[in-house]
Amino acid sequence: MLTHLIPADVPPQMRGKFLETLHTTTNSIGRLMLFAGDQKIEHLNNDFYGPGIPPDDNDPEHLFKIASQAKIGVFATQFGLISRYAPDYRDIPYLVKLNSKTNIIPYDAKDPYSQQWIEVEDVLEFARYSGINLKGFGYTVYLGSEHEHSMLREAANIVHKAHKAGLLAVLWIYPKGKFIKDEHNPHLIAGAAGVAACLGADFVKVKVPYKNGEPDASLLREATQAAGNCGVLCEGGKKIDEKLFLQELYEQIHIGGTRGNGTGRNIHQRPLAEAIKMANAIYAITCEDRSVEEAVKILQQ
Amino acid sequence: MLTHLIPADVPPQMRGKFLETLHTTTNSIGRLMLFAGDQKIEHLNNDFYGPGIPPDDNDPEHLFKIASQAKIGVFATQFGLISRYAPDYRDIPYLVKLNSKTNIIPYDAKDPYSQQWIEVEDVLEFARYSGINLKGFGYTVYLGSEHEHSMLREAANIVHKAHKAGLLAVLWIYPKGKFIKDEHNPHLIAGAAGVAACLGADFVKVKVPYKNGEPDASLLREATQAAGNCGVLCEGGKKIDEKLFLQELYEQIHIGGTRGNGTGRNIHQRPLAEAIKMANAIYAITCEDRSVEEAVKILQQ
Amino acid sequence: MLTHLIPADVPPQMRGKFLETLHTTTNSIGRLMLFAGDQKIEHLNNDFYGPGIPPDDNDPEHLFKIASQAKIGVFATQFGLISRYAPDYRDIPYLVKLNSKTNIIPYDAKDPYSQQWIEVEDVLEFARYSGINLKGFGYTVYLGSEHEHSMLREAANIVHKAHKAGLLAVLWIYPKGKFIKDEHNPHLIAGAAGVAACLGADFVKVKVPYKNGEPDASLLREATQAAGNCGVLCEGGKKIDEKLFLQELYEQIHIGGTRGNGTGRNIHQRPLAEAIKMANAIYAITCEDRSVEEAVKILQQ
Amino acid sequence: MLTHLIPADVPPQMRGKFLETLHTTTNSIGRLMLFAGDQKIEHLNNDFYGPGIPPDDNDPEHLFKIASQAKIGVFATQFGLISRYAPDYRDIPYLVKLNSKTNIIPYDAKDPYSQQWIEVEDVLEFARYSGINLKGFGYTVYLGSEHEHSMLREAANIVHKAHKAGLLAVLWIYPKGKFIKDEHNPHLIAGAAGVAACLGADFVKVKVPYKNGEPDASLLREATQAAGNCGVLCEGGKKIDEKLFLQELYEQIHIGGTRGNGTGRNIHQRPLAEAIKMANAIYAITCEDRSVEEAVKILQQ
Amino acid sequence: MLTHLIPADVPPQMRGKFLETLHTTTNSIGRLMLFAGDQKIEHLNNDFYGPGIPPDDNDPEHLFKIASQAKIGVFATQFGLISRYAPDYRDIPYLVKLNSKTNIIPYDAKDPYSQQWIEVEDVLEFARYSGINLKGFGYTVYLGSEHEHSMLREAANIVHKAHKAGLLAVLWIYPKGKFIKDEHNPHLIAGAAGVAACLGADFVKVKVPYKNGEPDASLLREATQAAGNCGVLCEGGKKIDEKLFLQELYEQIHIGGTRGNGTGRNIHQRPLAEAIKMANAIYAITCEDRSVEEAVKILQQ
Repeated sequence: MLTHLIPADVPPQMRGKFLETLHTTTNSIGRLMLFAGDQKIEHLNNDFYGPGIPPDDNDPEHLFKIASQAKIGVFATQFGLISRYAPDYRDIPYLVKLNSKTNIIPYDAKDPYSQQWIEVEDVLEFARYSGINLKGFGYTVYLGSEHEHSMLREAANIVHKAHKAGLLAVLWIYPKGKFIKDEHNPHLIAGAAGVAACLGADFVKVKVPYKNGEPDASLLREATQAAGNCGVLCEGGKKIDEKLFLQELYEQIHIGGTRGNGTGRNIHQRPLAEAIKMANAIYAITCEDRSVEEAVKILQQ
Repeated sequence: MLTHLIPADVPPQMRGKFLETLHTTTNSIGRLMLFAGDQKIEHLNNDFYGPGIPPDDNDPEHLFKIASQAKIGVFATQFGLISRYAPDYRDIPYLVKLNSKTNIIPYDAKDPYSQQWIEVEDVLEFARYSGINLKGFGYTVYLGSEHEHSMLREAANIVHKAHKAGLLAVLWIYPKGKFIKDEHNPHLIAGAAGVAACLGADFVKVKVPYKNGEPDASLLREATQAAGNCGVLCEGGKKIDEKLFLQELYEQIHIGGTRGNGTGRNIHQRPLAEAIKMANAIYAITCEDRSVEEAVKILQQ
Repeated sequence: MLTHLIPADVPPQMRGKFLETLHTTTNSIGRLMLFAGDQKIEHLNNDFYGPGIPPDDNDPEHLFKIASQAKIGVFATQFGLISRYAPDYRDIPYLVKLNSKTNIIPYDAKDPYSQQWIEVEDVLEFARYSGINLKGFGYTVYLGSEHEHSMLREAANIVHKAHKAGLLAVLWIYPKGKFIKDEHNPHLIAGAAGVAACLGADFVKVKVPYKNGEPDASLLREATQAAGNCGVLCEGGKKIDEKLFLQELYEQIHIGGTRGNGTGRNIHQRPLAEAIKMANAIYAITCEDRSVEEAVKILQQ
Repeated sequence: MLTHLIPADVPPQMRGKFLETLHTTTNSIGRLMLFAGDQKIEHLNNDFYGPGIPPDDNDPEHLFKIASQAKIGVFATQFGLISRYAPDYRDIPYLVKLNSKTNIIPYDAKDPYSQQWIEVEDVLEFARYSGINLKGFGYTVYLGSEHEHSMLREAANIVHKAHKAGLLAVLWIYPKGKFIKDEHNPHLIAGAAGVAACLGADFVKVKVPYKNGEPDASLLREATQAAGNCGVLCEGGKKIDEKLFLQELYEQIHIGGTRGNGTGRNIHQRPLAEAIKMANAIYAITCEDRSVEEAVKILQQ
Repeated sequence: MLTHLIPADVPPQMRGKFLETLHTTTNSIGRLMLFAGDQKIEHLNNDFYGPGIPPDDNDPEHLFKIASQAKIGVFATQFGLISRYAPDYRDIPYLVKLNSKTNIIPYDAKDPYSQQWIEVEDVLEFARYSGINLKGFGYTVYLGSEHEHSMLREAANIVHKAHKAGLLAVLWIYPKGKFIKDEHNPHLIAGAAGVAACLGADFVKVKVPYKNGEPDASLLREATQAAGNCGVLCEGGKKIDEKLFLQELYEQIHIGGTRGNGTGRNIHQRPLAEAIKMANAIYAITCEDRSVEEAVKILQQ
């Protein structure tokens, strides 16, 4: 029933709406398939145009076509892009990513600050008059940046305001800066996941932990425990072999204890039909409790 | 009918006004001829006085005379200059450029921050009581600056507030700073255009992409695709030969897929009569679908 | 009766509530046993997972189990973590720690700034609709940081707003930065305690003063005098031998003049049953005026 | 009639008041004699005490005696000084200088930021209840400072709020910082004057342009044209020979096209009677269209 | 009657209250004896504990005992300390010092910024419901700091808000930073005093001017003239011989033209009975127009 996942800062009159949000975004099993489409700011045009990327992907509408035709939990992207395409795509379950920055300045040259663009209240008002299917808010925190304090404050407020509106809050938490030796360190990732819990987030998107440079789902256990009832999502990262991707996802969930995934490039860097199948396969494992084999069959349909 | 260009954050009761704004500023074909007159801050008096510049141009009223007598989509300049001349030029279609900075500090000496001068609400109130013909708002974002976060936030809010008022939002997006190797790189410009789409802008003004130091309109395709339904405008830049300018403009639109242009010096650095003809020629190609030859004839009238 | 501990900025209509808060949190003797559970941000996952730490401690709920089953004055942790677990733990006496920062950036690399996350008013509203048992607010000030001024301002306002709501204000005051030679210097700690009094705090948590690298409870007297009617709490620090811990605590109170303690790791880095006993033993000395021997017996039950 | 000098952001119901303000401050000819008395902050006590300065000048009331007994357009000084002396000098036409900084930090050591002290609304309210004769607001912008953006924003808002209240806005615009080679360069000064026009100012106070280190009034033409219908005022600068001062002033107006002057030390660094005569002589040239000879006679009365 | 000391920004309905404040704090002669008790932040515990300081002084209540039993004009200390002790000391004439900083960071290591802690409105509301005897506000400005602009702005607003409430405003003005060669330079101190006048302050506390390293009351004349009708107070500084202190104070007033003094350590670093006598002696010279000899007799009673 997922009622155990309703945080105390959801006001009594919003508990029904929050529960419905949880059910519709997680197929009632508490796991979230987040289709990440915020890279046009984060990576400029690198993820959408170039060798190995189909021409479809350079049109921003590609993301909306996928999100509207595939099975997803939420589609995460910026407010402005939603406002430009929502007239034709009102029914996509949107998660508004409230901050974003470009990757022009390297992390080791200057500590990153990704500031909130627009107020939660503005988005709520927009959702009311535009009729879009708003499911929640996303925000990135760069721990270890000299601007960490600003991002912690913005994150805490966004999470709380999302809950007051009966909506989900998802945090992307990435330790960055010159004092971070290894972003894939399992203990550091567990720390990041714990920070999300202390910020009240419903889900936290983190890096995949590595051991000797290789992912190993069991390394996630420290993080998924440390996050408590805040669900851990691994980021999808660069596009890799489909079957390998699905296998890793399965293990993250069933060995590592994650409660979903946040995937972008591994979905949208494909022609539309293939992208939809890939999203559906990911959704099958994440939200429909299917095996890797069953998911692979979806790709082959 | 241009209804496909109404973003979802235009409230229902403002859709009529926004559509009318789009039609009147683009001659109903969705392309914008933006007469750029913000250089008195951006370049101090360099663009208005000196060798090769006619004396007329040193009087700020020159810009208003052109804007009122020539065919243009919008005239973009600062709020204060509008307030000083609008008593005699109420009917010009104004686009209020909400930020500006001088060029005294070189971009490589200090990362640029061009802050919003005045609130959208102030300008809307001013338009109401002064009766000026307000069409929209402009704002510059310097990607890659350490102040990028402040400009992204201001830009997102300006675009949204413009839409809520049924008005256009145009962003000037220029990557700057020591991590930018080549401002004319087509892939970087496509990234900038994509950022504007994610900020919800109706139009984005970018640099002209170069290949081996030369413009080539086909290089614009990556950017015009990446911007989706946000229209790309190339900046006019330094004054060049008229015919060459019109030829390049034609190719930007018909080969590169741009939806207009933003031109300042190539118009106003001429005596009034010539400036008006040049603006009309640009308008003819941009908004009246004329050929280069037809546009050149306008110059010769 | 503790009425002498009601500060003048508690409004007349809130004096009853403040007095009740004081009585329930201090067992009517004016001494506070503060169970500190803010380390998931301050130390990431270091205090909850690793050699010598029982597996229970990696689950954030461990803290809430202890806080709900042991005798404590208040449980101090972040707003978000409370909101995630309060549905099952409404009755814990909560002290919301309003700021927190990670330890990724070393204090000697950059002056620390731990910013307030969320407004006092937000927490008060949350307490009303969620029914949690809110007792007060906590905040850390790093004296000697270049951001000292921001923290002094936030602290002054938090203390005042807590009092206006009839609640306690506890400050963590730690001198930091390159001009601090020795954080355990008794004279410096006395200065920190005096700062808390000038900020209006009810209690101040400080470092344990050392003489030749060793704690000595008599060294606390300068600080407990300098703090006046603001109660001094020593931090618990790293986990040490239980009996030694209790002995030191007893001496801090009875020799040093402290009015309580703030203990985290020495409680939660134990399996649940042991953690509860340790908390109860600390409470016995702090709030029930028991001897060390009596407290040790609690551990052995 | 000066109606051509009413900017469009003066609301209809304030046009009468603005016109009256213009007439009374410019003797109905559109030229402003600004008595500058803001140096107690800008230059500390250097301009008021020392060799060659009469003892009178060290008493701040000296400024008010001159301003109340001489012919002036406006007396520009800080809000606080006005509040201290206005009880005895209500009728002086005041221009409240809203920002000021000391000269302790050299411009080449740190980029200057002179922040607004108090809100326009506060001053308007003060004027209402105190009955002072408020005529407008002044503000300094240091172009080329890394804080330029803050000053441009504050200036734009002050000008607009002044106009909404039917009052004058005067900007002091000085390019500063390590990228300024020559503050007296005519082209740079023209740029500064143009910036004031874009900020909507009624008058702009600039440095005197030099050619080979010497002032030459014809050098002002570029600036007075570039400023359009914003009137240019030259600063008075250090105290010099009276007749030479008046001759330069005459030429600034009649050759350079300035619309007034901003003079401080050349007036107040004299005993009261002489100071009044000097102010009257300046006023005669500026606002009464007198010749240098006529003005010199005033000095000799 | 002191009506000449009511600034124009005291609203008509507050003139009575302001006049009464002036009379009660200055014994109706316009001179202020300010008992300074803000050192627990400014100097941490250095001024209250150590060789030559009596044990009484380490208890913050010592300050309140003196302030309540001795003759003083106002007792200046922080809001929080007042709130902690005011329940037993409501009738002391309080001047709330609105900013304070520690001395941990040396002035030559980093430019100081002492930020306002709490709003004037908060203190006024507190005074109403607590019944404390509030007389005014104090604030320190460090001229020459890179944060000077923030402090000038806060100071201007505090002075104005104090006046609107019928209360006194006292500024501590200290030039600081690497461009200050000699803090005791008479000309610099005169500049500081003039700044206070331009900020609208009723009184300004400055350093004692030196000539060849020695104080000489005649050196104060430049400053007391430059401050106009803003009264100059010399700081008391380190504890020195009592008679010498009183002699210097007398000369500051009768030769230098000061209008009071701000004394802390020379009062509170004594056992209670002696401290009270010293305060009374200072008050006798400052506010009762007594001779040094008469004042010394008070010490010997």
